Amino acid sequence: MIAREPDVLLEEARDGSRTALARLLSYVEAGADQHRATVALAYGAPAPYVVGLTGPPGVGKSTLTDRLISTALKKGQVGDEETFDQVAVLCVDPSSPFSGGAILGDRIRMQGHATDEHVFIRSMATRGHLGGLSLAVPDALRVLGAANFPFVFVETVGVGQMEVEIASAADTTVVVTNPGWGDSMQASKAGLLEIADIFVINKADRPGVRETRRDLEQMLNLGSQGEWRPMIIETCATNDEGTEALFDAVGEHRTFLDGARLVEARRQRTRAELDKVVRFLVSSRATALARGDEYEAQVDALVEGSTDPYRAAETLLGAP
Amino acid sequence: MIAREPDVLLEEARDGSRTALARLLSYVEAGADQHRATVALAYGAPAPYVVGLTGPPGVGKSTLTDRLISTALKKGQVGDEETFDQVAVLCVDPSSPFSGGAILGDRIRMQGHATDEHVFIRSMATRGHLGGLSLAVPDALRVLGAANFPFVFVETVGVGQMEVEIASAADTTVVVTNPGWGDSMQASKAGLLEIADIFVINKADRPGVRETRRDLEQMLNLGSQGEWRPMIIETCATNDEGTEALFDAVGEHRTFLDGARLVEARRQRTRAELDKVVRFLVSSRATALARGDEYEAQVDALVEGSTDPYRAAETLLGAP
Repeated sequence: MIAREPDVLLEEARDGSRTALARLLSYVEAGADQHRATVALAYGAPAPYVVGLTGPPGVGKSTLTDRLISTALKKGQVGDEETFDQVAVLCVDPSSPFSGGAILGDRIRMQGHATDEHVFIRSMATRGHLGGLSLAVPDALRVLGAANFPFVFVETVGVGQMEVEIASAADTTVVVTNPGWGDSMQASKAGLLEIADIFVINKADRPGVRETRRDLEQMLNLGSQGEWRPMIIETCATNDEGTEALFDAVGEHRTFLDGARLVEARRQRTRAELDKVVRFLVSSRATALARGDEYEAQVDALVEGSTDPYRAAETLLGAP
Repeated sequence: MIAREPDVLLEEARDGSRTALARLLSYVEAGADQHRATVALAYGAPAPYVVGLTGPPGVGKSTLTDRLISTALKKGQVGDEETFDQVAVLCVDPSSPFSGGAILGDRIRMQGHATDEHVFIRSMATRGHLGGLSLAVPDALRVLGAANFPFVFVETVGVGQMEVEIASAADTTVVVTNPGWGDSMQASKAGLLEIADIFVINKADRPGVRETRRDLEQMLNLGSQGEWRPMIIETCATNDEGTEALFDAVGEHRTFLDGARLVEARRQRTRAELDKVVRFLVSSRATALARGDEYEAQVDALVEGSTDPYRAAETLLGAP
């Protein structure tokens, strides 16, 4: 495909072109030539309000997201703040090689919105961007924000370190569970307890809801008491039960995050993101150093015993 | 303790002072002030011939090492090359907080040599050195080489990535197993198949030796065929059976590694070590960047949208 200028594409995306938006996201995902110009534009625009959804595979995240999209569009506002007339969903699956459109399962589950002009669904996979998804996703969220999506869902599949990291880099993080999944070991082991602003017990028509709620409450009692105590919401997404209560809970958390708290939380995340980019660039430079004549000369010197690894490395790196 | 100059200590260590040698190793382990001077001295001397021993906990590595010490001292030579009249053992346990002397279990098992003036036993743990054991161990081996130990055993406990990495950075790597441990999944999963120059089936008086040998042979047949086919030796260390055959196998591998092969293998390891030190120094610099006024100014700029993370990171890092 012919590379087009990010600024032209962003203007088209703001005017509603899904094709232009998809291409900008491809730039970010690939980490290639146009990536840097795209990122520079995206970070100049306000950040969207981001709701992260995570939880083990099979708990019904996609169906829940599908219902939340409808609810969000009906309300058109999160808390008393961000108003919107369109919603974007980023589906992140680190284990999937697919990207671009939504992956098959999501397409089917979210088919009610696949052709909805107020909804933009995109899946991202580990492809191209050397810094990986943990760098590409924040960039993609900013692109969506710049393209007139002030409200975005990020859905991650799985509960690995990366999934948890991505989902918890949201303004409101929703951890989706099922009845019978309250075992404190499981939840705390996966680090889900620390990141949840809202717990959802989905498939709440099944037995074991009360026990799961009790287990979650106990874990929350044991955990550190912040200003916000995570809410526990019961849903049955397939019947569209509880999704409005869930969206209201998101709004309540948004309201709790008044101006100062949101600014501070985002500043902390900005810091974490900058650190990641610094490490990524530094690591790229280190890799680039591990070739070439100067490098081989230092290996020679090491082999013949005329230097040591620290002196050799500092010679390669130059003065700090 | 009062810091003493590494060059004075090294001279004393060469003259047989265990106290001086122990202090030099402490410098390396702690990664502190005298570390760099110690390393500079150590890498100026020839590298020792290193035999790595690894395998799951409980297979009898310490007892086997104990017997190997006796055999090595009796032979006084590995293959037709390195001659020695003293042997050093480095016990590495990444999960242990103990270091300095040998850890309790090893002390007991190796007690026959604890007071032997021809034997030096030292355990290392993850302490102090920010680069961790994977940087400290190669440095410690060079210190031992510089202190007149041309032949050294490195024993690692466990089969985690770090243990395997440390054991495989030896000239000859011995993987210790037991009867019944031939299950190809286990061995290949732990990466032990790729690193072994010699497989030991210890506790060979127990049933299942033939099956284990057969399983190992099958795995070796499936694996890539290098010039050296790993040998399989049966031992019963508690009865001192097979340890001489094992030491001879080490000698055979030493002979196989004629001049050119050893030089090339060590050059590859030198390269890997230099890369690790480069990454370590670069990461230290990145960490140092993540504080201070310049850093906060970039965070401010990011929050207000006047820069993006990549530009901010490059500003902090300076020109490449």
